[in-house]
Amino acid sequence: MNGLLTDLYELTMAAGYFEAGKANQKAVFELSIRRLPKNRNFIIAAGMEQCVDYLLNVRFSADEIDYLRGLQQFARVSRAFFDYLRDFRFTGDLFAVADGTPLFAGEPMLTLRAPIIEAQIPETYLLSALTFPSLVASKAARTVAAAGGRDVVEFGTRRAHTPEAGVLAARAAYVGGCIGTSNTLAGMRYGIPVFGTAGHSWVLSFNTELESFKHLQKLLGPQTVQLIDTYNTIEGARRTAQLGRPLWGVRLDSGDAVTLSKQVRAILDEAGLRDVKIMASGDLDEYKIREIVSAGAPVDAFGVGTEIATSADAPSMGTVYKLVELDICGIKRFTAKFSEQKETLPGAKQIFRLSGHDVLGRSGECCVGSEALLRPVILGGNLVEPLSDVKSAKDRAAESLAKLPASLRSLETQDDYPVEVSSDLQALIERTRRNLA
Amino acid sequence: MNGLLTDLYELTMAAGYFEAGKANQKAVFELSIRRLPKNRNFIIAAGMEQCVDYLLNVRFSADEIDYLRGLQQFARVSRAFFDYLRDFRFTGDLFAVADGTPLFAGEPMLTLRAPIIEAQIPETYLLSALTFPSLVASKAARTVAAAGGRDVVEFGTRRAHTPEAGVLAARAAYVGGCIGTSNTLAGMRYGIPVFGTAGHSWVLSFNTELESFKHLQKLLGPQTVQLIDTYNTIEGARRTAQLGRPLWGVRLDSGDAVTLSKQVRAILDEAGLRDVKIMASGDLDEYKIREIVSAGAPVDAFGVGTEIATSADAPSMGTVYKLVELDICGIKRFTAKFSEQKETLPGAKQIFRLSGHDVLGRSGECCVGSEALLRPVILGGNLVEPLSDVKSAKDRAAESLAKLPASLRSLETQDDYPVEVSSDLQALIERTRRNLA
Repeated sequence: MNGLLTDLYELTMAAGYFEAGKANQKAVFELSIRRLPKNRNFIIAAGMEQCVDYLLNVRFSADEIDYLRGLQQFARVSRAFFDYLRDFRFTGDLFAVADGTPLFAGEPMLTLRAPIIEAQIPETYLLSALTFPSLVASKAARTVAAAGGRDVVEFGTRRAHTPEAGVLAARAAYVGGCIGTSNTLAGMRYGIPVFGTAGHSWVLSFNTELESFKHLQKLLGPQTVQLIDTYNTIEGARRTAQLGRPLWGVRLDSGDAVTLSKQVRAILDEAGLRDVKIMASGDLDEYKIREIVSAGAPVDAFGVGTEIATSADAPSMGTVYKLVELDICGIKRFTAKFSEQKETLPGAKQIFRLSGHDVLGRSGECCVGSEALLRPVILGGNLVEPLSDVKSAKDRAAESLAKLPASLRSLETQDDYPVEVSSDLQALIERTRRNLA
Repeated sequence: MNGLLTDLYELTMAAGYFEAGKANQKAVFELSIRRLPKNRNFIIAAGMEQCVDYLLNVRFSADEIDYLRGLQQFARVSRAFFDYLRDFRFTGDLFAVADGTPLFAGEPMLTLRAPIIEAQIPETYLLSALTFPSLVASKAARTVAAAGGRDVVEFGTRRAHTPEAGVLAARAAYVGGCIGTSNTLAGMRYGIPVFGTAGHSWVLSFNTELESFKHLQKLLGPQTVQLIDTYNTIEGARRTAQLGRPLWGVRLDSGDAVTLSKQVRAILDEAGLRDVKIMASGDLDEYKIREIVSAGAPVDAFGVGTEIATSADAPSMGTVYKLVELDICGIKRFTAKFSEQKETLPGAKQIFRLSGHDVLGRSGECCVGSEALLRPVILGGNLVEPLSDVKSAKDRAAESLAKLPASLRSLETQDDYPVEVSSDLQALIERTRRNLA
């Protein structure tokens, strides 16, 4: 895991802390959701596995150190700092919410407690590794909610921001509620169900559509899904009906899904293929799916690509990574920013989840009857226990979402879910503000 | 390079082609821009290096093949196909435009000519590897145009869709016109200039802002850029002025950049620091930059993150990968889709760039006085010559953009740049349409 995969300023700050004699000063940083992105009533945390993998394995190779030494920004830095980088390890603690946990504005996703350099360098990587999958999981949850019980499969690797991002998007979409993915590597790596049959080039590669349908049926048997829109959807449906079983379903990839699905359903039913499914795909999002569903279209499953794999309507969100606490020779100093729009709250925190609201408190507080969401994952540089797998994360997301008010699962933006600040935390905020004034 | 990093349907189609005896049938696939994304008058190609790397190195490991054999979709596939996958190599030809080339709707970015399975499997990877960097390069070009000669640095790794996407975004942004990046690994890997000094946690980690400024100055000397908005921007500017040189500049990361930059400029000038620069950052995009520039704000450089690294206003685009030609025992068959909105044109093509317009013709055509943009990169599975480096791509983008009508570089959407279809290609379209009717 490349130590240089971070913003340069993390490394100049690291050198600065080192030169200022702060290498052993303990710090607490928090990665939190400043604001929910547009069209989101909650965020589903995903991507913690990458964060943990990074913290356990981040290293600076000799080449990387040589590169840094050659930069003008490091011209004044002592040799001792580069020796320090050579042995760099994350030796601190990570407290984090589990993948699949719904979160709201103002809530921390993870807390790092470590010597300040070890907590500073990971900023860039952690923000990126956690924000993108969380956006995708949340988008998937919206899409699945819109599908009202029908299956949604994630199809978006070709639109993901790099092929590897497609693998992580597939994982996150599964956590968020999709039943599977088209990404084969994600299937192998995470044990996620994979889906896929044939595209237009398959149909075009044969002299006739019928010939292509026959070959697919021979190949896939009862898993056969015929893509019927290459030439004419209705003709494609008739040819499929004529061939009969074995057949799982047909896929509509263009045109008006409501009208076409009704016509195709009638053709299939007439041929006695009542159990054969209709899948719709092609530039779908949660709004189009809601329309299709509420029009009573006989669509059994949806394939969604771009919109989920890029979280297209909200491709970024305002996550921030902020210094909240310093431990200077055993004396704690709390830090915060009180500038407009960019306020941050001091001190290590805990999210206490209760029925109907959350309480944001200080990390040491006790809140009877609540679930504390930030749990120890790495202590002293060592993994406390293996992270739960993707299936548990998916179950957690489904169960947690079911407990939230139904309005939050609607596609329209709702009032903020109540996140209260505990009196202890409120007191700390006041004290910190006074100290800074 | 994982063979499974693709949509499952590429692999079921591969198996189907194999079982249908088409393994040696040559095919031509084209990856092209169906439509420009919103707010874009052109696309700057970027990401070809990843495509080439993939084609030269894609393999199926024994584990990957075992995984496929266990899938129900492959239950009917013969052992011979898995043996084929074990020795799978790309043995075909790649024709591609060079990174840094501006392109328009309807134009191909690359052409693959290979046995059909070898050309089908790469679809997913190539689309993802080429689309995202091209979006970023184009967005960077818009941002740089808006900055009207002021420098733009790419800061967006923390918002990129995975940290590795951040590295590729940094490269693409540099191709598109940024002077450098905050991503240190991109700097090392591609030789791109890297920038970065300190963030808010640096300032907060000292007892006073002044103390943090002094330490930064000691660390960075003439490269020092003070971040002056942690507590109060004007106070921060005064403290910076009081400390004087060595100093490269100050950075404003919040508040109204127009007003603040004027006030800060006055403070710096009064202290005799006329050559000290002002950099602005914080949720900037090309429109905000244009506003700042046209208001006459004394901002010398811009740091742009989210908007460039995610191409936030257009995080995806309609690139497609389509079968355009088959070679069946020496006889060519041309393929196309004529469905509404999803039309594709038959046959291998060439883009002929002339002054003031492009001509889209057939690959064998000659077009006097034009530059042919699709050039051989891989022939018979071997790289023809090393790809040109990122600096050449950057220069190509700048020179090519300068030759286009100035209106295309404005932020507003313009009429389509003229891309004419050659008479030979037009004749082929008509013939193919008649054959399909």
